[in-house]
Amino acid sequence: MTKVFCDWGTSNVRAYLCDQDKVLNQSSAATNLHDAKRIGFENVMLEILQQFDVPKTAPIRLSGMVSSKNGWLEVPYVSTLASSSSISHNACRVGTFPDLKIYGGVSHRLPNGRHDVMRGEETQIFGLLQLHPHAQTICLPGTHSKWVTIVDQCIESFSTWMTGDFFHCLSEHTILQAQIDSTDFEESAFLNGVAAAESSRSLLNEAFYLRTDYLFGRLTSEESHSFLSGLLIGHEIAATAAGHEEVYLCGADSLLPLYSLALKAKGIQTVCVSAAEASLNGLRAFEMEEQ
Amino acid sequence: MTKVFCDWGTSNVRAYLCDQDKVLNQSSAATNLHDAKRIGFENVMLEILQQFDVPKTAPIRLSGMVSSKNGWLEVPYVSTLASSSSISHNACRVGTFPDLKIYGGVSHRLPNGRHDVMRGEETQIFGLLQLHPHAQTICLPGTHSKWVTIVDQCIESFSTWMTGDFFHCLSEHTILQAQIDSTDFEESAFLNGVAAAESSRSLLNEAFYLRTDYLFGRLTSEESHSFLSGLLIGHEIAATAAGHEEVYLCGADSLLPLYSLALKAKGIQTVCVSAAEASLNGLRAFEMEEQ
Repeated sequence: MTKVFCDWGTSNVRAYLCDQDKVLNQSSAATNLHDAKRIGFENVMLEILQQFDVPKTAPIRLSGMVSSKNGWLEVPYVSTLASSSSISHNACRVGTFPDLKIYGGVSHRLPNGRHDVMRGEETQIFGLLQLHPHAQTICLPGTHSKWVTIVDQCIESFSTWMTGDFFHCLSEHTILQAQIDSTDFEESAFLNGVAAAESSRSLLNEAFYLRTDYLFGRLTSEESHSFLSGLLIGHEIAATAAGHEEVYLCGADSLLPLYSLALKAKGIQTVCVSAAEASLNGLRAFEMEEQ
Repeated sequence: MTKVFCDWGTSNVRAYLCDQDKVLNQSSAATNLHDAKRIGFENVMLEILQQFDVPKTAPIRLSGMVSSKNGWLEVPYVSTLASSSSISHNACRVGTFPDLKIYGGVSHRLPNGRHDVMRGEETQIFGLLQLHPHAQTICLPGTHSKWVTIVDQCIESFSTWMTGDFFHCLSEHTILQAQIDSTDFEESAFLNGVAAAESSRSLLNEAFYLRTDYLFGRLTSEESHSFLSGLLIGHEIAATAAGHEEVYLCGADSLLPLYSLALKAKGIQTVCVSAAEASLNGLRAFEMEEQ
């Protein structure tokens, strides 16, 4: 029986038509949540079914930011300890489709009463665990990177790092912008940034030395972009990766090599899995829990 | 004999006509360095003299970013240990004015070979020391805050914190922007931000809890702006103010109460001096060194 799986994020929808273990067809549309709301989530979904030439009665499973307040339907978070089974059973039905369900995200309560949250990454995590069942530490690099501890194939805890978000705003909207002349990747400048993060007191202070290194001729304008990237990623991993021998990385193809390079510079082994592959595997794993 | 002192920064020029201990006249113009370059620094200066009705032969002393590469003339940094005398003697002449000098900034070499720098703040520091000769720890809040250690009335060392620059870019160009509804000051939210910085692993992680505190109803959109301000200032002072009983604050009138509040919450006494008053006193102190 054919099924439709959608990784439905803030900025686009990736849909897969699957039959048992095979992907029969796939589509990708840059329909962001704001546009989807305007067009109607139901209409976007109907168009995907039409592309795939399958009826409304097909099993359809969605995950990602489509389950958020700004999505199709706000699906409650599953609390840690979270298993693929608990996420599957927390799914909510929506729309006029007989068998459409949206999986919610995961929340983790910190000892101080605050919360950390994810929506979409849990699907990648359980997809990655299909491929690597013994993974214990998973990092999902991105605008808001996640560091996840797995115990007995469950999400035990995780933390979010605004590394990508900081990178874009610091490189484009602070004094550092004036010296950034190129976005080409310069490996040695990147690794120097990673190393600088090690001895840093604070990002608020350390980031200023990009400016003075430039003023004193220790850093070129071509190197500044890569150095800043290394500084921020280095800052993230200095706080999260210490003590780990192996980290599983899952994310965009553009970020995996950077995190891998930074972790290897600290003597930590990495295994990389693409986000798209992990998302599809995760959606299938959740759906399998219903059987 | 009348003299002209100018605090000439990146975005404006504040000029004072002085006779011994009295300010006879003052003017302020929002002429940024870029415009001054276009108009001609000499022409901007002539206009100030015309306003004050004094001849070109009057003693004229300038400090601030006007001494930078993008200013009128790049004046070399004085290295730490820096005294008001060493800054005075490092001054450079420029233009067709018989007695016009620009004071340069101060650089501090870190043990790792990198440098920290200031241009303009040294004038405020030596001006503040005129009023409070026993000050040992001075903080100059701003886009790039400075923390300065004074020994025997000299600048022994200092560090720069991009707190204001981070604040503007994070509040306007990251996910946090979406929840910031008001720029009104909310004291308790600010102090909660200061407290949150205490236990923070890293700003990259801690900043995300502004988002989740908002999602989980622990922080309102009206409070978010003040909380973020408290978080960043708290992060800065957690790293710089520990161990100090008293901190002298010198800066913009809008920032002094915030830093004072954050420091007092940590049991640290503060003495506030306005930046404008300190700059004028500093310029006079440098000029006095020539006598």
